[in-house]
Amino acid sequence: VERLSFAADAAFRPDEELLDGVTVAPLTSPLRTGGPVQAAVFRLEPNGKIACHPASVPQILAVLEGSGLVSGEDGEPQPINAGEAVFWSAGEVHETVSEEGLTALILEGDGLELFRR
Amino acid sequence: VERLSFAADAAFRPDEELLDGVTVAPLTSPLRTGGPVQAAVFRLEPNGKIACHPASVPQILAVLEGSGLVSGEDGEPQPINAGEAVFWSAGEVHETVSEEGLTALILEGDGLELFRR
Repeated sequence: VERLSFAADAAFRPDEELLDGVTVAPLTSPLRTGGPVQAAVFRLEPNGKIACHPASVPQILAVLEGSGLVSGEDGEPQPINAGEAVFWSAGEVHETVSEEGLTALILEGDGLELFRR
Repeated sequence: VERLSFAADAAFRPDEELLDGVTVAPLTSPLRTGGPVQAAVFRLEPNGKIACHPASVPQILAVLEGSGLVSGEDGEPQPINAGEAVFWSAGEVHETVSEEGLTALILEGDGLELFRR
């Protein structure tokens, strides 16, 4: 058993232009080191934003707490709440913003597919 | 943008001997369909249990809510709380129990590695 904290106080604030008011607590090793996927907990402060950009690989964002707005290729913001996930295809332009603040798991990796009933 | 609910009311109760008082809400397609990893939200009711068994592939369990006890190869139960994750190697015998109840993300896949600082 190896252990890891992904609590708010274990998160870091990446110096990335796309991220505004966002901290990241990784769960897995990053894709660039050869892992099959990367998973991390992203926390958006109130009015935080993951600005519009294309997904480099297929991506799932699962909202664990809070609420926000997500958009995909059509640019249309859709409300999203805790307990809901979205999937973006590789190359899909997308954005996530939150007035209230939100905590989300983000999973990224080649071949990733959303569960279908 | 594709959407999926992983809320409690979207979860199912697998008919598996290892699971006692546990519901599962998948996020990704399962490993058996060729995905790189499978991710799902497991909810243990109070006194729920994922009984002792070897991990078929490397596994990360990240506690999102609640608390419980996890053990690995040595069988020693360790307390775990929301914001903490554990990693089990392929083949590692492990168990998860919760008196209070807990919600956890479980990620499983070949080549999965825990984030290291």
